[in-house]
Amino acid sequence: MNYRMLRYLLGCILLIEAILMLLPLSVALMYKEDVMPFVYTIVMLLAISLPCAILKPKNTQIYAREGFVCVSAGWILLSVFGALPFIFSGVISNPIDAFFETVSGFTTTGATILPAVEHLPRGILFWRSFTHWIGGMGVLVFMLAILPTAGGEAMYLMRAEVPGPTKGKLVPKMRQSALILYGIYIALTLFQVIALLICRFPIYDALVTSFATAGTGGFSILNESIAGYHNPAAEWVIGVFMLLFGINFNLFFFILIGKVKDVFKSEELRTYACVVSLAVIAIFINTYHTFAGAGDCLRTAFFQTASIITTTGFATVEYNTWPVLSKTVLILLMVIGACAGSTAGGLKISRVIILGKNIVREIKHMIRPRSVNVVRVDGEVVSDETLRSATGYLTVYILAIILTMLLVSFDGMSMETNMTAAISCVNNVGPALGDIGSMGNFSPFSNFSTLVMSFAMLFGRLEFVPMLVLFSPYAWKKR
Amino acid sequence: MNYRMLRYLLGCILLIEAILMLLPLSVALMYKEDVMPFVYTIVMLLAISLPCAILKPKNTQIYAREGFVCVSAGWILLSVFGALPFIFSGVISNPIDAFFETVSGFTTTGATILPAVEHLPRGILFWRSFTHWIGGMGVLVFMLAILPTAGGEAMYLMRAEVPGPTKGKLVPKMRQSALILYGIYIALTLFQVIALLICRFPIYDALVTSFATAGTGGFSILNESIAGYHNPAAEWVIGVFMLLFGINFNLFFFILIGKVKDVFKSEELRTYACVVSLAVIAIFINTYHTFAGAGDCLRTAFFQTASIITTTGFATVEYNTWPVLSKTVLILLMVIGACAGSTAGGLKISRVIILGKNIVREIKHMIRPRSVNVVRVDGEVVSDETLRSATGYLTVYILAIILTMLLVSFDGMSMETNMTAAISCVNNVGPALGDIGSMGNFSPFSNFSTLVMSFAMLFGRLEFVPMLVLFSPYAWKKR
Repeated sequence: MNYRMLRYLLGCILLIEAILMLLPLSVALMYKEDVMPFVYTIVMLLAISLPCAILKPKNTQIYAREGFVCVSAGWILLSVFGALPFIFSGVISNPIDAFFETVSGFTTTGATILPAVEHLPRGILFWRSFTHWIGGMGVLVFMLAILPTAGGEAMYLMRAEVPGPTKGKLVPKMRQSALILYGIYIALTLFQVIALLICRFPIYDALVTSFATAGTGGFSILNESIAGYHNPAAEWVIGVFMLLFGINFNLFFFILIGKVKDVFKSEELRTYACVVSLAVIAIFINTYHTFAGAGDCLRTAFFQTASIITTTGFATVEYNTWPVLSKTVLILLMVIGACAGSTAGGLKISRVIILGKNIVREIKHMIRPRSVNVVRVDGEVVSDETLRSATGYLTVYILAIILTMLLVSFDGMSMETNMTAAISCVNNVGPALGDIGSMGNFSPFSNFSTLVMSFAMLFGRLEFVPMLVLFSPYAWKKR
Repeated sequence: MNYRMLRYLLGCILLIEAILMLLPLSVALMYKEDVMPFVYTIVMLLAISLPCAILKPKNTQIYAREGFVCVSAGWILLSVFGALPFIFSGVISNPIDAFFETVSGFTTTGATILPAVEHLPRGILFWRSFTHWIGGMGVLVFMLAILPTAGGEAMYLMRAEVPGPTKGKLVPKMRQSALILYGIYIALTLFQVIALLICRFPIYDALVTSFATAGTGGFSILNESIAGYHNPAAEWVIGVFMLLFGINFNLFFFILIGKVKDVFKSEELRTYACVVSLAVIAIFINTYHTFAGAGDCLRTAFFQTASIITTTGFATVEYNTWPVLSKTVLILLMVIGACAGSTAGGLKISRVIILGKNIVREIKHMIRPRSVNVVRVDGEVVSDETLRSATGYLTVYILAIILTMLLVSFDGMSMETNMTAAISCVNNVGPALGDIGSMGNFSPFSNFSTLVMSFAMLFGRLEFVPMLVLFSPYAWKKR
């Protein structure tokens, strides 16, 4: 384990957090609010990060395990320090709750322990939504985009942080790939801000809502989430942008370089479109009788489908009262998630495709043991390594949901609540059903459960491996 | 596809069913009940099976796909004809309900659509419980034990019907393996009958209860299941026998041939003992306050753990009112199931062990990509083929539960009901939570849901592959 390089990289991550925190600080200044919570936090961050980050070690060589440890430890540190403004400002007095809220932000989950948010300082709310935007694309990807690094370590860091079975880098150089990804991310966010301004959103609301959409997070600055705006046009806009942020960013790059054909060939995109359409139709038919008109029903079905499949978690309706079929569809959407290489959580469409095709292959193999069968996605053969990692992923994923559900059940809430809360956290969705509801309010849970779910969110966001490596004794053994 | 051989084998299966039905017919005669439902069914079975089974085709060669098709089609036919006595006697007038009840019997699920059973004819109840016993070890295994067959086809049939990742046959000859398995099965059943007679069970009750225990089925002839006997000693006896029938039958064979050491080395057996102990302790502590004394609480915790992990489904208490932690533990036990090579359902302990060790291997591989890691169970390396089939199994398993839950949710029952009913059917447990409860009463469901769940039970009992092959166009294509 290259501890010096680890110290240096973690220092850089915290330094970046200090710099990013200048933004909510400026917002607090602008609204003439108390800036001290941010000032204290920034000072603490600088005091710790500068000594670590100022000296780059001579030996910058790191391998897979350093990459995983750096990403997982980095995310935990980011969340610990990111929670400080909530504590210093007195908005959240319980440190565990503040940690939960920040983890929920960075992991783009959007589950909240705050029962009401409208009275809170604007700087704090800005920071809360901004964590979604930071966590959506990943802090280490950001670091790679701005720091001059060699090839090797960058690859291990990027591979550890960017989720899903993606096809690999966009361009040969990792730094350029990171830059392109962030460029697309910033551009799409700006488009949404403009679209929301056209829908007569105030600039502050347009910004924080776009942050939460871009990261597919779901924190809102209204107690009633997006329903609080009573703005049908904005609901369509947000719905469409949620779906856009659920698409593999590689595809936007293909559009930029003119390979539009490749985009429509993508099996993942077509499956994504298919699942969304089917879910909208099912929910539309199933909930039609609860709405005044077809337009309202369609808009809500579309909005909720987009919100849940992209694991954003914005709500325009309390779907706890919906028929059980629609609720089951929503849970399925949580599990499936959107495309790999997007900011969304869940199993990811491409992984679901691979798992499905793997079953077909196994059946064919059973029927004719000597025939040679391969799994193809987009016409290309999927390697045995990828297949193994997808099926292994499913095992860990199920285990994580079951374990979270079991540990949370000590609190004695209903089984529907525990199950959907566990699914919601591991998939980074935010809202759940039962006692939590579409506004994603996790305040009824105990400290123990809140901590368990914080780690469930971190495990889910980083797709398990980095966190498992961090807590695995095998990783810390000398070779 | 060797259709002649398929016709011959299916004929033999139905002929065996006709012969086995002589037993409930005798019971009906003994109790001076209406024997005609059985007579009609037996005549129909003979009329169909004799022409098929009388002429053995010249070419008896079959392969994997014929084996799968024979097993899955055989089980469906068995259930269709097995349902006739219920319909002819008027006990169940709806044919779909009768099919459900029979499938539930043969698959050793024990879910019932009968709200009350105590007033029903004894012959019919005998048949109902006897289906558990037949289905527990498997009809085709029985057929192999009594029919003189060559090696090749027997292997494919046995492999298709006997569940779990077992280590292979006990002795070189398949027929002898089948004979040994049935010998152990009959002996254990007899021991239980004797033990229950000592507990002052009437002989009829001892027999039907032992049938349901041996097959890990769970049908009872009392409305209140085992709770109706108010017999603590019998509860301990049944609890212990349920656990015994959940052990890999190979281990009993090892004891018989004096290899007792091998039994205690078995990782699966030790894990099984561990899981049972942990579950009993958890439920004991969690439900202690709801019982009058520690003895009652321990007995009930032990009984319910044994009943659910072996997927039997007998009940001595309505655990729907238990704290949510205990209910979650019960659901976990349903999913885990007992040992492979037993009559129990569920994922099976050995598969859970393999899946768990596979995760550890994947993590090690991630940390040190060049290191060579293998999965070992009982000191032996698990082949990549077995690993692939275990992870593939998990995918199909999850998919089956999700699909059943989705289709059943059209009925609009609570989510807890739908989820646990789906888990209960796919794992062949029987009882569920919510609106169904520990007595496993599925009568509130619609015809559509009942049919869906019937197939969920069949898919689960045969561990998916045979049924998937039956419905796969690829299997019916000419080579």
